[in-house]
Amino acid sequence: MKVILPAKTRGGVQQMARGLCQIMGREISKGNVNTNIRQMTPRGTLQLPWSSINSVRTIAVLPWPFSFQPRDFSLPNSSWGSDMRRLYEHYNSQCEVETDDGEKKWGVWRRLPSYNRSLKYATGGVYLSKIIQSKARLFTRNIREQGAGFEYVVFVNKQEQKCVCVFQAGHLLEGPPGHVHGGAIATMIDTVTGTHATYLSGPVMTANLNINYRSPISLGSTVLLTCSLDKKEGRKTFVSCQVTNTDSSKLHTEATGLFLSITMGHLLGG
Amino acid sequence: MKVILPAKTRGGVQQMARGLCQIMGREISKGNVNTNIRQMTPRGTLQLPWSSINSVRTIAVLPWPFSFQPRDFSLPNSSWGSDMRRLYEHYNSQCEVETDDGEKKWGVWRRLPSYNRSLKYATGGVYLSKIIQSKARLFTRNIREQGAGFEYVVFVNKQEQKCVCVFQAGHLLEGPPGHVHGGAIATMIDTVTGTHATYLSGPVMTANLNINYRSPISLGSTVLLTCSLDKKEGRKTFVSCQVTNTDSSKLHTEATGLFLSITMGHLLGG
Repeated sequence: MKVILPAKTRGGVQQMARGLCQIMGREISKGNVNTNIRQMTPRGTLQLPWSSINSVRTIAVLPWPFSFQPRDFSLPNSSWGSDMRRLYEHYNSQCEVETDDGEKKWGVWRRLPSYNRSLKYATGGVYLSKIIQSKARLFTRNIREQGAGFEYVVFVNKQEQKCVCVFQAGHLLEGPPGHVHGGAIATMIDTVTGTHATYLSGPVMTANLNINYRSPISLGSTVLLTCSLDKKEGRKTFVSCQVTNTDSSKLHTEATGLFLSITMGHLLGG
Repeated sequence: MKVILPAKTRGGVQQMARGLCQIMGREISKGNVNTNIRQMTPRGTLQLPWSSINSVRTIAVLPWPFSFQPRDFSLPNSSWGSDMRRLYEHYNSQCEVETDDGEKKWGVWRRLPSYNRSLKYATGGVYLSKIIQSKARLFTRNIREQGAGFEYVVFVNKQEQKCVCVFQAGHLLEGPPGHVHGGAIATMIDTVTGTHATYLSGPVMTANLNINYRSPISLGSTVLLTCSLDKKEGRKTFVSCQVTNTDSSKLHTEATGLFLSITMGHLLGG
């Protein structure tokens, strides 16, 4: 189950890592993770085939990044300001609801976990060691200092085919003096529209982004990215996105994204 | 001469930092820097008014970032691979030419220096101290480890209204497994098309980016961004950009950018 990239595929494979991460996220949140994916998560005990037990024993005594404790970057941290926390709570409180007889069930929103490594190989043993050795980090999660770069959390609402991202822009994302770089805004738009397309259509890759910058975003401020499905046509998923202030009264940026579906075969080399 | 941002200007001010940095770059390369800008550069002695001499004495004994020795990120470093170095030498060797009588003069290309801080205030004293205290860093230059993030150098050719950027993508820019994030590609496109528009039209802001992703870019590889002027209409400058492999035989991404001119008054609060 090794991932083989279709390197010559026209249209790029911009969303492959995202697709796979979101697959992980969905499986974990539903509690039906398969054995291979469970090896990569911090929840519960590692469940590995006997053949790889020895190597895991060796790895287990090493510090992070060898400890299998990936950090979920979408959870609150001390750098989050009041706007970021308030909006997180607003959506997070709607992720799980209590029924009249006291049972808990899924709400309309779902928080997506977010890690800083892509899942190159989903099996253990030799492939697992390749992930551990890789220095590569997801672009939006590559800064260690909390609050300095992209602080964001994505919630999806499959019922309404809608997706929101609460994004707090750190001081290392500067473009115009005191304001967020246009490329950093494009990065968040690519990330969130792609996540939404993946959630609705399965693994996709970005084919086009068309971005209109309306008004600048101050460094340190929190904004809301709201994505909705425009249409689906065969392999194509069209998503639109608006970046606004937290009460949606001011439009900062608007964009459309076109995504092409790729098969799980492409993604997992099956 | 304090920079006041037109915060409510429709269209954003995405290119303001870039515009001002490029102004610095041009002034420095031509050797006719004015007194205020000279205070911010590593060349020569600080020339400050008497009123601020005391504070400068205090600052002068402090280590970087208080030493007024900003690093020019567009110069080669040990992380640059052979493709990056070769292309740098190719364009850099055309920046200065020797005449028949042994005199040196500008060539057709010009290398633009690149710093990791925006120039918020161009005067000394109290404004200078605000720059020093600011933690903000230019998004494309915010990673300290050489080779880990964006390694790039921009050359402009005013005669042919053309601009090239040699870009080596580090391991912290990952999107799809082993490949560059679509947002990182968008960031470089915004940076280079905006630099080109600024060079041709003076200070501008990004109004639109339209990006078509054709084929993925491997992490660690070097690509060439080539920008050309499409047209100018009043305040509007239209630039197109192609991202190719180093011999231009493979197209990775193509894009157009629309930039709106802003006045020096906007930029410098005059």
